[in-house]
Amino acid sequence: MELTLGGLADLLGGEVRGDPARVVRRVCTLEEAGEEDLSFLTRIGYLGDAARSQAGALLVAPAAAEKLDHDLLIVPDPHRALGQVLELFAPVAEVEPGVHPSAVVALSAVVSPSATIGPLCVVGERAEIGSGTVLGPHVVVGNDCLVGADCLFHAQVTLYAGTQVGARCILHSGVVVGADGFGFATSGGEHHKLQHLGRAVIEDDVEIGANSAVDRGLLGDTRIGAGSKIDDLVMVAHNVQLGRGCLLVAQAGIAGSARLGDGVTVAGQSGIIGHVEIGDGVVVATKSAVLGSVASGRKVAGIPATDHAQWRRQQALVRRLGKMRSRLLELERTVGGRQSEEEE
Amino acid sequence: MELTLGGLADLLGGEVRGDPARVVRRVCTLEEAGEEDLSFLTRIGYLGDAARSQAGALLVAPAAAEKLDHDLLIVPDPHRALGQVLELFAPVAEVEPGVHPSAVVALSAVVSPSATIGPLCVVGERAEIGSGTVLGPHVVVGNDCLVGADCLFHAQVTLYAGTQVGARCILHSGVVVGADGFGFATSGGEHHKLQHLGRAVIEDDVEIGANSAVDRGLLGDTRIGAGSKIDDLVMVAHNVQLGRGCLLVAQAGIAGSARLGDGVTVAGQSGIIGHVEIGDGVVVATKSAVLGSVASGRKVAGIPATDHAQWRRQQALVRRLGKMRSRLLELERTVGGRQSEEEE
Amino acid sequence: MELTLGGLADLLGGEVRGDPARVVRRVCTLEEAGEEDLSFLTRIGYLGDAARSQAGALLVAPAAAEKLDHDLLIVPDPHRALGQVLELFAPVAEVEPGVHPSAVVALSAVVSPSATIGPLCVVGERAEIGSGTVLGPHVVVGNDCLVGADCLFHAQVTLYAGTQVGARCILHSGVVVGADGFGFATSGGEHHKLQHLGRAVIEDDVEIGANSAVDRGLLGDTRIGAGSKIDDLVMVAHNVQLGRGCLLVAQAGIAGSARLGDGVTVAGQSGIIGHVEIGDGVVVATKSAVLGSVASGRKVAGIPATDHAQWRRQQALVRRLGKMRSRLLELERTVGGRQSEEEE
Repeated sequence: MELTLGGLADLLGGEVRGDPARVVRRVCTLEEAGEEDLSFLTRIGYLGDAARSQAGALLVAPAAAEKLDHDLLIVPDPHRALGQVLELFAPVAEVEPGVHPSAVVALSAVVSPSATIGPLCVVGERAEIGSGTVLGPHVVVGNDCLVGADCLFHAQVTLYAGTQVGARCILHSGVVVGADGFGFATSGGEHHKLQHLGRAVIEDDVEIGANSAVDRGLLGDTRIGAGSKIDDLVMVAHNVQLGRGCLLVAQAGIAGSARLGDGVTVAGQSGIIGHVEIGDGVVVATKSAVLGSVASGRKVAGIPATDHAQWRRQQALVRRLGKMRSRLLELERTVGGRQSEEEE
Repeated sequence: MELTLGGLADLLGGEVRGDPARVVRRVCTLEEAGEEDLSFLTRIGYLGDAARSQAGALLVAPAAAEKLDHDLLIVPDPHRALGQVLELFAPVAEVEPGVHPSAVVALSAVVSPSATIGPLCVVGERAEIGSGTVLGPHVVVGNDCLVGADCLFHAQVTLYAGTQVGARCILHSGVVVGADGFGFATSGGEHHKLQHLGRAVIEDDVEIGANSAVDRGLLGDTRIGAGSKIDDLVMVAHNVQLGRGCLLVAQAGIAGSARLGDGVTVAGQSGIIGHVEIGDGVVVATKSAVLGSVASGRKVAGIPATDHAQWRRQQALVRRLGKMRSRLLELERTVGGRQSEEEE
Repeated sequence: MELTLGGLADLLGGEVRGDPARVVRRVCTLEEAGEEDLSFLTRIGYLGDAARSQAGALLVAPAAAEKLDHDLLIVPDPHRALGQVLELFAPVAEVEPGVHPSAVVALSAVVSPSATIGPLCVVGERAEIGSGTVLGPHVVVGNDCLVGADCLFHAQVTLYAGTQVGARCILHSGVVVGADGFGFATSGGEHHKLQHLGRAVIEDDVEIGANSAVDRGLLGDTRIGAGSKIDDLVMVAHNVQLGRGCLLVAQAGIAGSARLGDGVTVAGQSGIIGHVEIGDGVVVATKSAVLGSVASGRKVAGIPATDHAQWRRQQALVRRLGKMRSRLLELERTVGGRQSEEEE
């Protein structure tokens, strides 16, 4: 891959400052980039690193341009432009449309001629695989699944029977969609399984990270809204309704029947209890446990989760508890209160 | 699937109030149910929703019957009866006993003629697969495993060599049973592996959710007691002893050699440290860390976990810390104490 | 397997006290061991159990020898010696070098003649598999991967294209190495994928537990240092740099671009935020959230994590908050302060 700075500017809609004929062979971090590499400044906090970088050229916002001496590619949103540059430099996948001879595809399955079914895949009865979709090795698509166009399923993905996946979804290895939820009727200490008759529905443009699980609904469906992105080892329970453009970071967990609005962010290792409503744009800080509904736009933290700023104040107060206790003791001495503290 | 209310009453042992000839075609939530659907009231808190439901018929407890105008199927335990109804309406699995031609089954393996070995399964030397058991696609059963009757393993389950699974167990996709525990002898900063010679033993009627892991024992076995249910992404470490009828909710983790009694519930994202005893019926609240043994019947919460009611009181006090500090400051002013607080 | 105590002493470099001709058939726990079994005392806290054990012989440190009446095998480091004994008693793996006929191996792949490629494996274009390495069933090795010598990959491991694994690594079932990190450029509420051009590099002597995930780098590599051990269901995000000999316990998570030194221990269910530096030998207690850099040698705990001893003091103070509040109220009464507390 080899592009000129001017060529990149044409593709991205940016402006060159310096030599438009400069050749760019790789995209690199500020530290690693050399004379023939493009690097980037997406956070102004790294301006010093950018100034010191050996990169041949930098991708920057207009505001940063005057502070740097490099050849520059100036764009309104360098983070977004970086995404486009990475697409250009990404290796082209070596896939050939068609069904690998080792795959086991049901006769009643409908596979688009432009889809790729990798080695040792299993595609069940009446399943449909859309045009341009690529199933890596060892993918299992259950009976009656519908998979849209231009999806990419990496090796070892499993869809249970009846699962629906929209267009342009990326599912990483080990993802399981449509397993039964954790629902039992307990009587006399015995847990009787509740058969799950609902489905799991993944809308368009969703990405799900390695070894994450999205369970099917008990009745009705579990739904992941369009454009939502789910990281690795995340758990989405039965009948969860996730809005559009949500972010569930690694090891987050959403319990049964929780409803999340659009643009909700759940940071890593956080959990949301079942049967609650989480409004649009809510941000749940890392390692929190949301035990009730949260209104749109709020940022929450803690176990149980509370307003984020309030949680920070509380944590600061907890760190000063030792001093508070000393002051209390001093007051008691001054006032002549009880001295029994040592015996607690 | 189509049943009459009277037919359902016969099957479940309940009583009809209204039209026993009413036809029921689906089971639905209170919100979604229409004229030809059965819905249900399992928690009295939803009585209002039930009263408003368009469902043709409702499954209810005797206490709720007089408050509703619908055709009713009255049963002593509607939650349990719902489980039975869902069984009736669940799609019949399309499996044919026998070994799929693409499966790799060792000559010394003993597979019941009524078992189903799905596409691309691997069954190791001397492994035994019981009658009526179904292995979905891509299941790997290691050497010397014993799998009981009427189990259902979904796609991509792995049993390491020597693992034992009882009757009627359900293992979901991505479950790994019998991997080595996390045991090392560290000397001079190097971690030397301890070979794990024990097994993992799953007793009868256990269900394990997607991508969960149960490690084998170092010496002696890891054991999951009969009727226990494990959710997705749960970790059970080497030599854990889990009693009967336990519930481990999503992303819970049980560390090495912990012993849990019968009927223990560990809520989502909670952890139990190694080498402790957790008594019968203990309930661990969500996002807790149990760092010591817990007596039977107790409910605990927090990090470290303490009595649940006490934890709630402590959290309430933490939320009032700001007020306590103000009162302390006021007292200091009144009494004439130090004013140095601002400088902290 | 049958060895004499004297034979074991020769193999391990230890000293026998008692009958060197005593036959040892198994290694067992102190409780389970009988006349023909070897047990061991690795923690002095179990001395009483050792004294009561029916074991024919015990593996002990010199300090414990005089307190026990059993036949003894005395070694300087019984924990390390136990590791060696377990190796001797571990069942010999039944593998035959060569490629199983059901495996799908690219013509351009380079597989050592002494390597074992198990049933239904997929090995991609130009991938290299080193001498003595064993791939269990259903392992997927992507294009251009390099796998060193004497590795053991259990069933259902996935390496994405370009992943590198050193020598003597053990990867357990469900491990995914090299999936894309969770990186998006968000504009106007839409999350645009950042293609990940970096790799995941696993150095020598690393073990990774069941269903864990190590993502590839965005630019530059994610790196797991030599001799590090990772437990089950652990998440290592893009561009993390893990030093040598680290321990990541079950369900721990390390966020993007965090840099961990050598010998760092992250206990179960703990998390480390992205873009921080964790010094050599740091210990993160269970269920903690490290939200900033930590200097070498420190032990931290809590959410957010702080000095471990300080966290313990804070937790003790929180448990006494009720008493502090009562004392404050008493003082207010004595001094004549406000009585409005009840209305809060």
